[in-house]
Amino acid sequence: MRQVAILGIGQTKVDEHWDYSLRELAGFAALDALQDAGLERVDSIFVGNMLSGIVSGQHHLGTLVADWIGLRGAEAVKIEAACGSGAAAFRAALMAVASGETETALVVGAEKMTDKAGHDVTSALATAADADYEVEQGVSFVGLNALVMRRYMHEYGWQHADFAAFSINAHANAVHNPNARLQFAVSAKEYSKAGMVASPINLLDASPIGDGAAAAVIVPAERVTGTSLRPRVVVAGSGAATDTIAIHSRRRPLFLDAAQASAKRAYAQSGLGPADMDLFELHDAFSIMSALSLEACGFAEPGQGPRLALDNAISPKGPLPICTRGGLKARGHPVGATGMYQIVEVVQQLRGECGPTQVEAAKAGMAQNIGGSGATVITHILKKG
Amino acid sequence: MRQVAILGIGQTKVDEHWDYSLRELAGFAALDALQDAGLERVDSIFVGNMLSGIVSGQHHLGTLVADWIGLRGAEAVKIEAACGSGAAAFRAALMAVASGETETALVVGAEKMTDKAGHDVTSALATAADADYEVEQGVSFVGLNALVMRRYMHEYGWQHADFAAFSINAHANAVHNPNARLQFAVSAKEYSKAGMVASPINLLDASPIGDGAAAAVIVPAERVTGTSLRPRVVVAGSGAATDTIAIHSRRRPLFLDAAQASAKRAYAQSGLGPADMDLFELHDAFSIMSALSLEACGFAEPGQGPRLALDNAISPKGPLPICTRGGLKARGHPVGATGMYQIVEVVQQLRGECGPTQVEAAKAGMAQNIGGSGATVITHILKKG
Repeated sequence: MRQVAILGIGQTKVDEHWDYSLRELAGFAALDALQDAGLERVDSIFVGNMLSGIVSGQHHLGTLVADWIGLRGAEAVKIEAACGSGAAAFRAALMAVASGETETALVVGAEKMTDKAGHDVTSALATAADADYEVEQGVSFVGLNALVMRRYMHEYGWQHADFAAFSINAHANAVHNPNARLQFAVSAKEYSKAGMVASPINLLDASPIGDGAAAAVIVPAERVTGTSLRPRVVVAGSGAATDTIAIHSRRRPLFLDAAQASAKRAYAQSGLGPADMDLFELHDAFSIMSALSLEACGFAEPGQGPRLALDNAISPKGPLPICTRGGLKARGHPVGATGMYQIVEVVQQLRGECGPTQVEAAKAGMAQNIGGSGATVITHILKKG
Repeated sequence: MRQVAILGIGQTKVDEHWDYSLRELAGFAALDALQDAGLERVDSIFVGNMLSGIVSGQHHLGTLVADWIGLRGAEAVKIEAACGSGAAAFRAALMAVASGETETALVVGAEKMTDKAGHDVTSALATAADADYEVEQGVSFVGLNALVMRRYMHEYGWQHADFAAFSINAHANAVHNPNARLQFAVSAKEYSKAGMVASPINLLDASPIGDGAAAAVIVPAERVTGTSLRPRVVVAGSGAATDTIAIHSRRRPLFLDAAQASAKRAYAQSGLGPADMDLFELHDAFSIMSALSLEACGFAEPGQGPRLALDNAISPKGPLPICTRGGLKARGHPVGATGMYQIVEVVQQLRGECGPTQVEAAKAGMAQNIGGSGATVITHILKKG
């Protein structure tokens, strides 16, 4: 496979963008990435999105975005893998460039969620779960995660307060990210008093939805020369794997098999391992998912993920910084866009553009995007060089 | 790009499958293709689908299908490009295998439409058009195509009866396809008396919706050896292009620029041209689209597409057979599945499995799948060898 480099990145703030339509948000991020890449056109456009049909009455989003940004004629397609749509689009684009079938590709993750009432969004998000065997029973997506968290606490003896450090770290980092939805710090006391959503998940365990878009331009690596001001960032590893969507069908409901398989593929391809990662943008849709992701990817033993947070290992100055720009928890979780925010943020870290939350001398970083509660997992390892 | 071969194909009948869910239909076609390929597993699964979120309350379809057919763990993703979703999924899979990132891929086009009332399906299909600038005005998808047909007739001087031969050919061929939804012949008189849908488009100009799935297994060509009974079928060319979705924004509303660009790419890649095509499975969602596709792909001059039908050039015995298994018009148009039905049907022709509608000594065939009214066009050229 020919190696691919990320030439440009772009993003909008995650927010309630009531003044902008989905095509505009996607377009803003896309044009930002094209400008950053110094390109006016690309051959192909891959849009990651989950909910445009339900929320905006608009399918066919790839072509819509291509036209709106002035690239009429370019190949365009939409990729959907629930909340993993962003990274799934990136991986499809990666394979397109690697195959030689296209020379330049633009990937945009975009989602507009706040035009609907809360209960409508809850219904829309439930389409990531198994309609016949989970949603039919009346369980919501947060409800499914609450069942997992409750069982995890029981099985491994953790208290709810033990998860606070995940939320505190994410919010502390988001203070310095102008594109984050929730740019404020939270304390352990605030965490303990936050309103309950689905016990034991409270408001500070759960990521907020939002409207937003993030984008990247990728090209064959041989076309890019790095400079001291702007190092070349290449895709060192990519892996995707799945598990059953319905959690009750899993052999180990408390272990993310697909995250492990996906990370293993990315590790093997890159020749790097967990110890080589200078940061990890993981999929903290709920604080329990942070713990499970760390365990599946080899950073902690099963059941020991919260220990990393309690030891403050996950801060930008710690040995394994996570959610360095706020994560899903505080940057926000516009579902189909999230995977591309993660990739853009890893690029920012490798370029050294992250100010107070910059990870010192970051050379390699991992982004992991999850669809459903661990059902679809796509992992990318980016590195300088 | 390394060459890719189609190792196995599968399909369900297009019908009102009220007894089967979307995952079952997709699974039947997928298992059929795996059996035909002689494989038990594949690395990656690409599902083409447009409406599962709206019609079945189910996103995340790639992973759902992977699990249901017993391939838990495999990479899986859904691709959406409105009615072009099937071929878009095939092209994504093609690039995945060509890149070397995956060795074996299963592509499934699947759609379930008949669980909803007719007006709900009409609304759902309208999400292929521009929500803000077309659908907001109250126009339906058939309405948009009716405007194009009306203008085409005015501009080039055709009568409605001149389009009858497209419908007659499609229905005549479907009689011999056990997987077609409408397995009956129609006459010119029946065409002229068919109920009006949106003038000038009547029931025999318009393809019927339906539930169905079609699938193919693809692998690197060097892994496949053809035999006299089962020739090797390779993907000789692939091209995708887009146009603006809103028809009123096009410079030439009566010419499919994206179809032309997409076909040109596939021709260039294959080293073949229109004269080399032994058959052409085109996207006859409405009879006007047959005419426009033939013109855009170099088989007729602009405005002269109906001439090929009137001259009976399009029958299985003619110089350019189209819709040899019934086309969208009579095999049926389960939107996100259609592109894969077309590819499966070209493979059947190249294998010589088409009975009374077999194109004699077919060596190369083209399949062209369209999203929207010419907004997204994906063309594949398959050949023996």
